[in-house]
Amino acid sequence: MSTHPVEVGGPTRQRLIDVAIELFKQHSVAGTSLQMISDELGLTKSAIYHHFRTRDELLTAVMEPLIGEVGALVVAAEKHRGPRARADHLLQGYAALAAANRELIPLFTGDPSVAALLQARPDWAAVVERQMMLLAAVEPGLGGQVKATLVMSGIASAAGVDYGDVDEATLRDQLLAAGRRTLGLRVR
Amino acid sequence: MSTHPVEVGGPTRQRLIDVAIELFKQHSVAGTSLQMISDELGLTKSAIYHHFRTRDELLTAVMEPLIGEVGALVVAAEKHRGPRARADHLLQGYAALAAANRELIPLFTGDPSVAALLQARPDWAAVVERQMMLLAAVEPGLGGQVKATLVMSGIASAAGVDYGDVDEATLRDQLLAAGRRTLGLRVR
Repeated sequence: MSTHPVEVGGPTRQRLIDVAIELFKQHSVAGTSLQMISDELGLTKSAIYHHFRTRDELLTAVMEPLIGEVGALVVAAEKHRGPRARADHLLQGYAALAAANRELIPLFTGDPSVAALLQARPDWAAVVERQMMLLAAVEPGLGGQVKATLVMSGIASAAGVDYGDVDEATLRDQLLAAGRRTLGLRVR
Repeated sequence: MSTHPVEVGGPTRQRLIDVAIELFKQHSVAGTSLQMISDELGLTKSAIYHHFRTRDELLTAVMEPLIGEVGALVVAAEKHRGPRARADHLLQGYAALAAANRELIPLFTGDPSVAALLQARPDWAAVVERQMMLLAAVEPGLGGQVKATLVMSGIASAAGVDYGDVDEATLRDQLLAAGRRTLGLRVR
């Protein structure tokens, strides 16, 4: 991505988020500074302080809607009876979320800055932990934990691959089928 | 990790690799510069030029043995008859490799600097591509591709999680069982 002309009247909040996401893709989150984001916009750092004071404030704004969706999904999944029904509800929603955000979701797997932000936000870490526990509960013990991690990270990574001309619903269905297979849930 | 005292006689090649891996864990590969590595050692950049001139030369040294192992695995797997036997051979080796390198393997999934290095090394990209094709061939079409990606990335991520006191052989067996399940290979 090349540099952009200086924006008249200063960048909007959404414009900053969009530029940040582009840089996260190129350099990882951990490899992107607020300075790089302002450089990309041809601005000084102080020109964007109005919206975000740190890279992590920007990262928070990017992640917040996704964590919100996962949180709602966890609450809905926990209302089901039995570990298999709970895991399946969660998996359906997570596959849909990953397919709908196929550029964004892969950025958050394995990135140390994302892990650090989760450490700093116990409410967010709790959402991810509950998500993991719902998936792991299908099989007691280590096997369930390994499969849950494989599904969570694997779906995030697999959503981001370019398979050619594949629409969102098809991708969602394939991610769901793969996740169900891994967890040993019935394919419906 | 705190800074270290200046090394007498200059750092060894292995010491540079070890420090680089620590920084990759903390900051991602994309977020780690040669400057950061020399700062961590309390050295100037020129003091480490003897061993490595760029961060990517260092990354190459870290990845080379692993790519070599995957390459040997791909060649051995391709000697089997039938897509299922080939995929299973590969999966056994990959699960063992991930379990034996549980700190290292997760660093390479989804990191843009690793992806860029693979682009610049067509011989390495070919190894990864053959690995992927061997896993994807179990199921024709998109389903096979999605499951292969989920298994490759998922095993790498799942290997890096702290499950408490789990030895290498147990982790390997669990990664293999999860991968076989995802691909629909018989658990033996």
